[in-house]
Amino acid sequence: MNEIKIFCPATIANLNCGFDILGLCLEGIGDEMIIKKSAEKGIKITKITGANLPLETEKNVAGVAALALINYIAFKGDAIKHGFEIEIHKKIKAGSGIGSSSASAAGAVFGINELLGKPFSKHELVNFAMKGEVVASGSEHADNVAPCLLGGFTLVRGYNPLDVIRIDAPSELYAVVLHPNIEVKTSDARAVLHPMIPLKDAITQTGNLGGLIAGLYTNDYNLIGRSLKDVLIEPLRKHLIPNFDQVKNTALQNGALGSGISGAGPSIFALCKGQEIAEKVALAMSESYQNTGIEFDIHISKINPEGTKII
Amino acid sequence: MNEIKIFCPATIANLNCGFDILGLCLEGIGDEMIIKKSAEKGIKITKITGANLPLETEKNVAGVAALALINYIAFKGDAIKHGFEIEIHKKIKAGSGIGSSSASAAGAVFGINELLGKPFSKHELVNFAMKGEVVASGSEHADNVAPCLLGGFTLVRGYNPLDVIRIDAPSELYAVVLHPNIEVKTSDARAVLHPMIPLKDAITQTGNLGGLIAGLYTNDYNLIGRSLKDVLIEPLRKHLIPNFDQVKNTALQNGALGSGISGAGPSIFALCKGQEIAEKVALAMSESYQNTGIEFDIHISKINPEGTKII
Repeated sequence: MNEIKIFCPATIANLNCGFDILGLCLEGIGDEMIIKKSAEKGIKITKITGANLPLETEKNVAGVAALALINYIAFKGDAIKHGFEIEIHKKIKAGSGIGSSSASAAGAVFGINELLGKPFSKHELVNFAMKGEVVASGSEHADNVAPCLLGGFTLVRGYNPLDVIRIDAPSELYAVVLHPNIEVKTSDARAVLHPMIPLKDAITQTGNLGGLIAGLYTNDYNLIGRSLKDVLIEPLRKHLIPNFDQVKNTALQNGALGSGISGAGPSIFALCKGQEIAEKVALAMSESYQNTGIEFDIHISKINPEGTKII
Repeated sequence: MNEIKIFCPATIANLNCGFDILGLCLEGIGDEMIIKKSAEKGIKITKITGANLPLETEKNVAGVAALALINYIAFKGDAIKHGFEIEIHKKIKAGSGIGSSSASAAGAVFGINELLGKPFSKHELVNFAMKGEVVASGSEHADNVAPCLLGGFTLVRGYNPLDVIRIDAPSELYAVVLHPNIEVKTSDARAVLHPMIPLKDAITQTGNLGGLIAGLYTNDYNLIGRSLKDVLIEPLRKHLIPNFDQVKNTALQNGALGSGISGAGPSIFALCKGQEIAEKVALAMSESYQNTGIEFDIHISKINPEGTKII
């Protein structure tokens, strides 16, 4: 196999109570990438459509993630006799808060791993994809690349060493994502956070995270709903997203289990039980956002069990 | 049924990453209580053995919990035509950190509920037992009374309203508890805590709590072990317990999955996979603690699936 075409899905990170540790994988929304073996060694980004992103390997999320992978192999003493060319066809808008950079990072390492005969598991690939995230956000984090690669829900237990737990999504769970076409810079979203938080809020948040994990393992949609709360981050970040409270409340009033900020925003997500409720919630969220005059996209998606895959 | 004898087990709360929200139920270690219907209305504590505790109903944990239950029934308009007499035979030492007060509170409400023909579920009884905890610690908390009543592991997702999730323990899981015969006042254990904590530590703790819950649902002992970490509370409280680090490290070196402070201390617990390792760990912890010259008790226990029960 000398060439591969892959689909790298969008993801929702944080999910209210799982700041920096939890994520889920979406279906239907994602980038496509084509990765080819090339005679010239190294990594070359040959084409990018759908976004204005740098072609220089070291400045591109996919390039940096790919380099992390091939440099690791070289470090282990296994010479790769060829290089790789990467085409990126972005469908996920940059800065939308549904893992645009992560999709590129995940796709690059997934595709190269396939062309090399799968020396690494998907879990192992998360380590390399994380390196790409540094280009986009300044830090190695796995809360989008892990669900993008692995599908389902993922919990990042810790980083030393990286410990990612994949959790199957309950079969009737749907995500609705409303993406307002405004920019919330990750740096701004980080700047509003407080480095110190009340212990009592941490206890509340931890209880909800535990409840959410328990709800996922027991397919308890009510428990999932009761747990989808965020007392730490949402109160600080929601002001960056016009009409956030209104859209969230609309989602809940129309039957969503929970609703919150996707990643660092500006996308607003809702989780729902069943397609019918998801469609009703999506319609209500759309109607609610039309009042703002801000352009937006809306997606309805089951939870994607597969993650990044060959197409 | 006019009289009932019950067993109310000891419990371990906090469990490293689950401060104020997580607990488990022990086997073999627990108080006994005898509860009788009496002609005189109200709650009367008639006898306490094994501890120097107040007989006045309003000053006694069991009494206050029992009053909470019968007052609720009266509030709902159902007259109880008799009262209850409570005998408490303490086996769990007060201030040991394994839920001594909780056992009394749980036992009282469990026993009265049985004599009344079970108007409440065990989950509902947690609400009343919590009221007793106020006498002992100044606050309503459920992290010991919930596992004491329900058995297994319990997660307190939140309090408004009380939301307790019971989780089965993996079948080969054993707890070892070393109780140094010293007093750590709950007020002192609370005083060393900081009301504000670093956000990054909260994220680490939440990741571990998520990992522990996932490990319990999947019987993944290694994951349970990796998750039994406490970056928030143990570093502040361990100084209150002589030789804590030494005992903990001994437990881990001898194969324990994890080890930490039971409740607010001074008891030190270890969780182990299988009886053989638990016995080895208990022996090593005992040998380690003999150097201190402090008297101690040590217990080995499976996780109790039943909680408070009739005997």
